[in-house]
Amino acid sequence: MKLLLINPNISDSVSALIRAEAERSASAGTQVEVLTAPFGVAYIETRFEALIGAYAAAQLAAEHHQRFDAIVVAAFGDPGLGGLREAMDIPVTGLTEAALASAHLLGHRISIIAISQRIQAWYREVVEACGFGGRLASIRALDRPLSGIGAVQDEHAQALKALAERAVDEDGAEVIVLAGAPLAGLARTLKGQLPVPVVDGVSSAVRHAETLVALDPGAARRGSFAPPPLKPHRGLPASIEALLAGRNA
Amino acid sequence: MKLLLINPNISDSVSALIRAEAERSASAGTQVEVLTAPFGVAYIETRFEALIGAYAAAQLAAEHHQRFDAIVVAAFGDPGLGGLREAMDIPVTGLTEAALASAHLLGHRISIIAISQRIQAWYREVVEACGFGGRLASIRALDRPLSGIGAVQDEHAQALKALAERAVDEDGAEVIVLAGAPLAGLARTLKGQLPVPVVDGVSSAVRHAETLVALDPGAARRGSFAPPPLKPHRGLPASIEALLAGRNA
Amino acid sequence: MKLLLINPNISDSVSALIRAEAERSASAGTQVEVLTAPFGVAYIETRFEALIGAYAAAQLAAEHHQRFDAIVVAAFGDPGLGGLREAMDIPVTGLTEAALASAHLLGHRISIIAISQRIQAWYREVVEACGFGGRLASIRALDRPLSGIGAVQDEHAQALKALAERAVDEDGAEVIVLAGAPLAGLARTLKGQLPVPVVDGVSSAVRHAETLVALDPGAARRGSFAPPPLKPHRGLPASIEALLAGRNA
Amino acid sequence: MKLLLINPNISDSVSALIRAEAERSASAGTQVEVLTAPFGVAYIETRFEALIGAYAAAQLAAEHHQRFDAIVVAAFGDPGLGGLREAMDIPVTGLTEAALASAHLLGHRISIIAISQRIQAWYREVVEACGFGGRLASIRALDRPLSGIGAVQDEHAQALKALAERAVDEDGAEVIVLAGAPLAGLARTLKGQLPVPVVDGVSSAVRHAETLVALDPGAARRGSFAPPPLKPHRGLPASIEALLAGRNA
Amino acid sequence: MKLLLINPNISDSVSALIRAEAERSASAGTQVEVLTAPFGVAYIETRFEALIGAYAAAQLAAEHHQRFDAIVVAAFGDPGLGGLREAMDIPVTGLTEAALASAHLLGHRISIIAISQRIQAWYREVVEACGFGGRLASIRALDRPLSGIGAVQDEHAQALKALAERAVDEDGAEVIVLAGAPLAGLARTLKGQLPVPVVDGVSSAVRHAETLVALDPGAARRGSFAPPPLKPHRGLPASIEALLAGRNA
Amino acid sequence: MKLLLINPNISDSVSALIRAEAERSASAGTQVEVLTAPFGVAYIETRFEALIGAYAAAQLAAEHHQRFDAIVVAAFGDPGLGGLREAMDIPVTGLTEAALASAHLLGHRISIIAISQRIQAWYREVVEACGFGGRLASIRALDRPLSGIGAVQDEHAQALKALAERAVDEDGAEVIVLAGAPLAGLARTLKGQLPVPVVDGVSSAVRHAETLVALDPGAARRGSFAPPPLKPHRGLPASIEALLAGRNA
Repeated sequence: MKLLLINPNISDSVSALIRAEAERSASAGTQVEVLTAPFGVAYIETRFEALIGAYAAAQLAAEHHQRFDAIVVAAFGDPGLGGLREAMDIPVTGLTEAALASAHLLGHRISIIAISQRIQAWYREVVEACGFGGRLASIRALDRPLSGIGAVQDEHAQALKALAERAVDEDGAEVIVLAGAPLAGLARTLKGQLPVPVVDGVSSAVRHAETLVALDPGAARRGSFAPPPLKPHRGLPASIEALLAGRNA
Repeated sequence: MKLLLINPNISDSVSALIRAEAERSASAGTQVEVLTAPFGVAYIETRFEALIGAYAAAQLAAEHHQRFDAIVVAAFGDPGLGGLREAMDIPVTGLTEAALASAHLLGHRISIIAISQRIQAWYREVVEACGFGGRLASIRALDRPLSGIGAVQDEHAQALKALAERAVDEDGAEVIVLAGAPLAGLARTLKGQLPVPVVDGVSSAVRHAETLVALDPGAARRGSFAPPPLKPHRGLPASIEALLAGRNA
Repeated sequence: MKLLLINPNISDSVSALIRAEAERSASAGTQVEVLTAPFGVAYIETRFEALIGAYAAAQLAAEHHQRFDAIVVAAFGDPGLGGLREAMDIPVTGLTEAALASAHLLGHRISIIAISQRIQAWYREVVEACGFGGRLASIRALDRPLSGIGAVQDEHAQALKALAERAVDEDGAEVIVLAGAPLAGLARTLKGQLPVPVVDGVSSAVRHAETLVALDPGAARRGSFAPPPLKPHRGLPASIEALLAGRNA
Repeated sequence: MKLLLINPNISDSVSALIRAEAERSASAGTQVEVLTAPFGVAYIETRFEALIGAYAAAQLAAEHHQRFDAIVVAAFGDPGLGGLREAMDIPVTGLTEAALASAHLLGHRISIIAISQRIQAWYREVVEACGFGGRLASIRALDRPLSGIGAVQDEHAQALKALAERAVDEDGAEVIVLAGAPLAGLARTLKGQLPVPVVDGVSSAVRHAETLVALDPGAARRGSFAPPPLKPHRGLPASIEALLAGRNA
Repeated sequence: MKLLLINPNISDSVSALIRAEAERSASAGTQVEVLTAPFGVAYIETRFEALIGAYAAAQLAAEHHQRFDAIVVAAFGDPGLGGLREAMDIPVTGLTEAALASAHLLGHRISIIAISQRIQAWYREVVEACGFGGRLASIRALDRPLSGIGAVQDEHAQALKALAERAVDEDGAEVIVLAGAPLAGLARTLKGQLPVPVVDGVSSAVRHAETLVALDPGAARRGSFAPPPLKPHRGLPASIEALLAGRNA
Repeated sequence: MKLLLINPNISDSVSALIRAEAERSASAGTQVEVLTAPFGVAYIETRFEALIGAYAAAQLAAEHHQRFDAIVVAAFGDPGLGGLREAMDIPVTGLTEAALASAHLLGHRISIIAISQRIQAWYREVVEACGFGGRLASIRALDRPLSGIGAVQDEHAQALKALAERAVDEDGAEVIVLAGAPLAGLARTLKGQLPVPVVDGVSSAVRHAETLVALDPGAARRGSFAPPPLKPHRGLPASIEALLAGRNA
């Protein structure tokens, strides 16, 4: 089985973190490949940056999907996920959606620990759009500037752990999600140090993508996740043109 | 006052409908300009198409915003609206958001009449993301193929009116929204023929954009609609680069 | 265009504040008239006082509506608004509903800054009845006795501003509503001093009432905002009798 | 124990139905008295009529409360209830609230059977304001003109029963509420003829009012149901003036 | 009238508290009997303990119901209530459901005061399952170890009162529920000492059970509270076997 | 890896279906064992039957958990799941929860196809308790008597498929869950015959249990899924006594 993980941002250091955790968590026999966006920003904190990342993810997916069994949008917030699920004939998931699936299986009230204050509103909107708003105990976030996105978990592991402790004690969290690709692998590092189960987006997404391939539930041919209908278009990258033509072929 | 209306799709015929209704509904002293997306699809029905339209709208807004007092994303579903509100220092609204604002002032339970079956799931998600899910009486849509997007209202006016009647009688709608830029102006055509108030997105957006300019409520300098923080980026169009640099300058 | 603003309370000093802000915010060509309730209390903080104000507003509206193009119930909490919308054949809005419409166009999470602790429960119920409960970041209120209702904003401007700052920083407010007719105009005074957009009920209501007149969406002839059905009645003021008879005529 | 039931409408025939069912359902030792509004309409179907009924109920309550241990607002929709609960130092309930309390103890999903199409929107808003929106299976209503409000249940018993059957079979109702004072006693008449428990507002309100007197839970001295604060007022009926002064004395 | 109160736990000291408050609150002519679970734990704080208590309650109800007019599951959290309502042909209620019914009649926003930190998550889930999640102002709980379950209210009355005060002042509670059978009677003790109405589960359940018997709304013969359908079973206690057979007979 | 699947009912024929599908869907290296409840009913349709099944599942889990890496409660409705998650130090999931996790990764709006009318209310309550109420497009169910629980899918496959088609076309389902252990394997049989992805509870639960073991997120030591606190108990089966003592040891 081959999984494509798309980093919708330009940070190679984050792609390396994603790759390392994906390889650690994949089943025997699963190959993972991580691609980094050719355009965009270092990491997504806002709706505007998500809009850019979504388009970058769509281009990468359109170009490369044919070699893979499933795709993971490897940024918390899942930019472009809904659209890719329509356009692809293979399973697609994202870090938020996959982390919520794991958390759902471990407890009811979920807290998210994030890397910046600014990122919280966008995360909240994504969680609510997933229908998990009623299970969100809290989002807590670092409030210090980040010296570099690839080193967040090294520099701030204790502060992130302290936020998780407060989420358990003050917000009633029953599960903790360490959110964002820059924290990929931190759950593994903190294993046994938190009082409730801890979920990582990358390992969750890899495992759940494998499960979707194994369950083989069938593709949508009707309803809102069927392929987008054919219609006039103009000025799109060739890969996206081919994608729009392909699923209707 | 100058308003920019961005058609995030490639259909010049729809841009013409938008322009006509915008000019009919603008106050004296307001100038409207309509720009059509240089790339994308004929009209947005799906999340994937919305993702493309959002990026096209962002490019147009980044290139042209400096000549305007406010911007309207002139497609129902408001692709890119949240992101543009962060990135712009002038008011931005969209057809869905503006139509909901008008409907909110006219009744409690709102039905949306739409041009295709496929479009309904996306509309529902947008309305729910706006926090209006609890006020949505129904979405009803044409179930016939469209011969051309610019002629929908001419060819299907009676079918659309019949859907609105059913929304009132069977779904308890207290206000009707005729949804989608291809229906721009239809509310004016049907005036007096429906048993409840009827809302059009384009005229609502033009009027509400004028109101936002007049009220001058101030720009967000903190919180989730403040400008996106400066950070490394790569490969973006020059206009978007300038935009990201500008609001933080 | 002529707008009637009804102060459902007996405070002439508040009517003066309403009039001043309404005149400042009306478009050229719009005339505003403010009427003060002939009976009732100084300002509404409770459900019981709202019940009285609603009846007073209904009497004033019934007596005077024929000279106007739209009506504004000029108290936050909108006493009687739903009923008047049924009974009148011209647009009717209220300060809460109109402030929420403006806030809806500026951000997602809204905080309300209010003049007394007691008033908060009623405000919350009204916001929830409008369907905006899910977007309410917080209500924060002064906790000091008011020396006189007409001087609240002069005496407490800094305390009110501090409450707004806390709503942004602690509650995640993306828009601030300065609530209550006694604060009419304060948003204008504080312009540029708050980190997020600030909304005033009176100016919002005046502008949105103008928009409703301009859009001319049609009156409800069916559904729950159609005129109340004719039926036996007794002991009502002549103006209300005429109103009940009139829309069914 | 003495209970005051206030019919906020002018229909003596409905007051007679209320009185008969109240007397049948009161415990030994409970005296009931029914007062009819001196002004208003024959029966409330709309928000505007509810606004009038609320003011009429307030006047009657203010005049007579001192002779009673508890008050029932004896119209479905409970006009004025929240306000009276603030203003009175004895328990106050209403037909909707009391019927929902009974239904809550009998099943989860509740359907309301009502006497007119028009009345449904108002009922829905009241049920939602009570926080029972999530438990409302449906509201179903007669769609024929009523020859006289006092004879509804005699003339339409079979149609009302058929509506209840459909609510069970098609809407998943686990409890039926026969709604509106004009249906007082019909639940008793239909006993054993419906497949799920049936609730009547008047008998529920009488019994729950007795319970509140017996439990003696204490009056609100803080919070939003404490007496309205003393403040300037003008032009109010003497009984309401006395009421406002009294609870603060 | 004879009421059966089932303590689904093994604590005779708590059964004594239940019995005392039930006898104090029952109407003249009502006899109450309290039975203690033959197996289980001292008091329920968790979902696992509730699962045990539910089965114990079912056994006691199956053995004894024929001598009674109504049954009360006398533990906050109501273990087994939904199941017993299906299986019994007499009214069944529980302390949570009954306390919520009383609170519903006294105010809108409800706080629950509980005896342990651990118990809160389970209480919240039960309240949400009742559909009262939107009215829950807060749950506040003792954070000290309990020396013995029968003496909680004697030892911690002041701490519990202080929690109630904070719920009113900080959480906006309009009604207080003193939760858990171990607090039976404490509302009576604290009468007049709290600033808002106070509700006790046992007295509420006794009174509401009496009301259900008096109203005689009919048993469910269809829908989800009809008797469980007959089907093969094995290894059940004879009383439960008889119960399953009986209502279908 | 060894998984224990507990059939909380007495039907050996259903246990065989569970076993077959579990073995088909388990990864290489995973061993599955299915245990059948020693007491209870043939299949659970009601809250009362679920209460019995929960207790039976708890006994089986307490007796056998030490030989396994994870446990699956193998009945749709997940009787006892929350309690077992507290009491066990290994992952526990159930068919409903696991099916929802799969569906969550495949689409937004979910319909459940069930084997009897009666079962629907209980399923709805379980889905809502999981926080998925807002994503439930519909529950549709067979309305014919079942000749034997082990043969439902053989006898009714076409009727179940027709229900799924209607859920897609009329209710807007984007994913279908074939619900109930008696339908284990039917999704596999219908592969490619439905227009949207189809989810089976048993295969989902097996795969998600494997994932939880692989992710190793840590056990709850605080919060509401920590082990139940030690306290006096009486009359419990030895295995449950040992369980209560064990996790606190």
